[in-house]
Amino acid sequence: MLLNCDLGESFGHWQMGMDELVMPHIDQANIACGFHAGDPLIMQQTIASAKEHGVSIGAHPAYPDLQGFGRRSLKCSSDEIIAFMHYQIAALDGMAKMQGVEIEYVKPHGALYNDMMAKNEIRVAIMQAIADFHRPIALMLQASADFAKHQRQAQQYGLTLLSEAFADRCYDDDGKLLARTQAAAVHNKEKMLAQVEQLNNNGTVTTISGKILMLNPDSLCVHGDNIAGVKAIAQIKQLLAK
Amino acid sequence: MLLNCDLGESFGHWQMGMDELVMPHIDQANIACGFHAGDPLIMQQTIASAKEHGVSIGAHPAYPDLQGFGRRSLKCSSDEIIAFMHYQIAALDGMAKMQGVEIEYVKPHGALYNDMMAKNEIRVAIMQAIADFHRPIALMLQASADFAKHQRQAQQYGLTLLSEAFADRCYDDDGKLLARTQAAAVHNKEKMLAQVEQLNNNGTVTTISGKILMLNPDSLCVHGDNIAGVKAIAQIKQLLAK
Amino acid sequence: MLLNCDLGESFGHWQMGMDELVMPHIDQANIACGFHAGDPLIMQQTIASAKEHGVSIGAHPAYPDLQGFGRRSLKCSSDEIIAFMHYQIAALDGMAKMQGVEIEYVKPHGALYNDMMAKNEIRVAIMQAIADFHRPIALMLQASADFAKHQRQAQQYGLTLLSEAFADRCYDDDGKLLARTQAAAVHNKEKMLAQVEQLNNNGTVTTISGKILMLNPDSLCVHGDNIAGVKAIAQIKQLLAK
Amino acid sequence: MLLNCDLGESFGHWQMGMDELVMPHIDQANIACGFHAGDPLIMQQTIASAKEHGVSIGAHPAYPDLQGFGRRSLKCSSDEIIAFMHYQIAALDGMAKMQGVEIEYVKPHGALYNDMMAKNEIRVAIMQAIADFHRPIALMLQASADFAKHQRQAQQYGLTLLSEAFADRCYDDDGKLLARTQAAAVHNKEKMLAQVEQLNNNGTVTTISGKILMLNPDSLCVHGDNIAGVKAIAQIKQLLAK
Repeated sequence: MLLNCDLGESFGHWQMGMDELVMPHIDQANIACGFHAGDPLIMQQTIASAKEHGVSIGAHPAYPDLQGFGRRSLKCSSDEIIAFMHYQIAALDGMAKMQGVEIEYVKPHGALYNDMMAKNEIRVAIMQAIADFHRPIALMLQASADFAKHQRQAQQYGLTLLSEAFADRCYDDDGKLLARTQAAAVHNKEKMLAQVEQLNNNGTVTTISGKILMLNPDSLCVHGDNIAGVKAIAQIKQLLAK
Repeated sequence: MLLNCDLGESFGHWQMGMDELVMPHIDQANIACGFHAGDPLIMQQTIASAKEHGVSIGAHPAYPDLQGFGRRSLKCSSDEIIAFMHYQIAALDGMAKMQGVEIEYVKPHGALYNDMMAKNEIRVAIMQAIADFHRPIALMLQASADFAKHQRQAQQYGLTLLSEAFADRCYDDDGKLLARTQAAAVHNKEKMLAQVEQLNNNGTVTTISGKILMLNPDSLCVHGDNIAGVKAIAQIKQLLAK
Repeated sequence: MLLNCDLGESFGHWQMGMDELVMPHIDQANIACGFHAGDPLIMQQTIASAKEHGVSIGAHPAYPDLQGFGRRSLKCSSDEIIAFMHYQIAALDGMAKMQGVEIEYVKPHGALYNDMMAKNEIRVAIMQAIADFHRPIALMLQASADFAKHQRQAQQYGLTLLSEAFADRCYDDDGKLLARTQAAAVHNKEKMLAQVEQLNNNGTVTTISGKILMLNPDSLCVHGDNIAGVKAIAQIKQLLAK
Repeated sequence: MLLNCDLGESFGHWQMGMDELVMPHIDQANIACGFHAGDPLIMQQTIASAKEHGVSIGAHPAYPDLQGFGRRSLKCSSDEIIAFMHYQIAALDGMAKMQGVEIEYVKPHGALYNDMMAKNEIRVAIMQAIADFHRPIALMLQASADFAKHQRQAQQYGLTLLSEAFADRCYDDDGKLLARTQAAAVHNKEKMLAQVEQLNNNGTVTTISGKILMLNPDSLCVHGDNIAGVKAIAQIKQLLAK
């Protein structure tokens, strides 16, 4: 099981994320492409850092909404979403190539990610956009009870899927994350490490109702925006290395 | 002598330029990349139209200033300019590749173009940015009395230059355009066609003082933002075809 | 019955609307505030033109989305909507005051207008935002079968409502506009003038099913983005002046 | 001598400045207006905090450049600068009025501030913009050897000036700040407190050459973007209170 993290989410003079501390521990860097965060200089630096640490690069495209950090759903046509994705993926991949590396996958950000999981029409537009790329790249989405269905869709577009799970979030029986408004939504550190261990050993999570759910994720999403998160990443890394 | 034109300069719901009428007549399309004009949908459509008409595609990057249409100089560091250029060139080239074509050259837009011609530091940053691209592409700049100097600079970066002249603008003895504030700055149609003919036959222009200046341009810049401009393009095309 | 029109919807170098031709015929100018269209120079000029023609000024605030012209719904919290509205209303009113005039009402734009009509939560946020203004200004919304309900809501906020109807759009029995995708959605000129006359004489429209619906609007929304629209405004004006 | 600080310079999800720690110690809050930093929600909160602590509110307008944080000079016409200023001042003042307070002065930000100090044309545009406001508000600029000249200019526009000095920056004999690239440009804490004391007692600074320069500032600019800066503010406050 690999580790992925959203990186390059500073903008101009505003800092976000402890990227330099996170990069040495992860396998896959989801790099912001300028629509919700990131600017050309930050993208350049984040690519350089990923390359230095041998981390795989993924595009992390979003709705065009810097002010809302891409977390507000924007009602777009499929044509708009496809064109947005093309632009952001192309920009990051071209900048990566200038440093001798390439993007390997795409993971939509924030509201675009949530809309992809919830709405077939958006998911199809995203798959189409990635299939249009001039060489094969994968789509990373959430491991869930719908994964087999998503994989059938992806096959129609000739796409490889990467599935990801969350270390610190409690799942419901459908493999969806409990809303953050619910008390049990976010695990404490002990439960988080237990969930990582269970995912790593068995590919399963224990849902809020106590059910065992097979997720079998390719990757685990970790967060590096604060010291506690960065420390957790190191512990998860150790645990996975056993 | 080829014809080049700035295209794809609409934005969202705002239209600019009569692109569909211009494309059949030109050889090189300088396509806006989203910083001064253009958005992902418009870039996509403009690439498709260029491909359909067999027109060569160039990136037309600019300072990040939609409100000012890239016509206001923005005091940036060389690092910022290089990163801006990378982002815009990469975005357009990647979007072109999704349609099976590629960019062949870069022509900076507006204030960035003027700053490139006037300031060595900016010109060097632009050359560096283009040299960083993962395959060779050319830089289009203004044919002037300094062209030999520009070519020596370009050789240091392994760059090919394309030089362009202007059909309807009066030149001074240094090969610079007269400022638009001067009465004689813009030729009437008769003078414009005479200048095109002279450029085509001899590679020269007659300057405001009556001096004959050798420019020997590779390309002629034409404008398609209004009906008169579009008609002039057709006439120039006829003249060059003789 | 007054005439209102959306104006000041150019942006930077991009033109939209034939504002100078429209202004002499209308009573109320809904002026864009920079979030979907308009920039400080354009706002300044549009205020000056409204003042010159004795036209009442309304703020025309929108979701922050220049690329989508404010026509894409953006999922915002009520707090965000209230703050957006404050900013845009304040900017336009302050700029009007610098020319010795003031805004008199607010008419939300595009997707924000549609969301206001469709969703109680958004309508309440908009009413709250306008009620927060330091002096009383009105809210313009669509005359519909729900107008009495809207008026009760507005009273809770101490707000005056202005209702508007559409000259060229066909209504359903609920007083909603037929979607533009339906064949009968937009009237031809003859039907449009008949609808204006009926609204002016009786305050009613005849719906798609033939029902007579009382709307009793304060104002009629007209469009000035093309020559046909501008000509229609002049005809409507004549008709109302009888 | 009052204390002023730039505040409200976060944007969307990006934090900047320790505003809550600074506000209790200062007299004047220069609040960002959305062009270089700040968004409607942040402006609203910063106004509320200033009101709560009885701090005077100033507009802190900038060139439209979020990515560059308003620190890059943008070559604008005087008309553009005046319209920018109007928009930003109006937006902040209107939002302040919704909370029952008002702006009292304007202090341009970053590159606009530097251009105002260096170029007569920009300074005149800024004075004109502030004079256009519907009630008298002051302009804050840098106390320098040119202050008498600036005051004569301001009188022509009927403007009151507020002059500010810098606690931690070394001055040259013209009353300009040493460029940050020079070794002695920024004082250590001891020298900074000595400079504050001298400014407070005598209105003077000792320049890099040892000359005593009369500045007689109305206000001292302090910085609250890090813990060291916030601690220094508290010490300066104590020193001034003696």
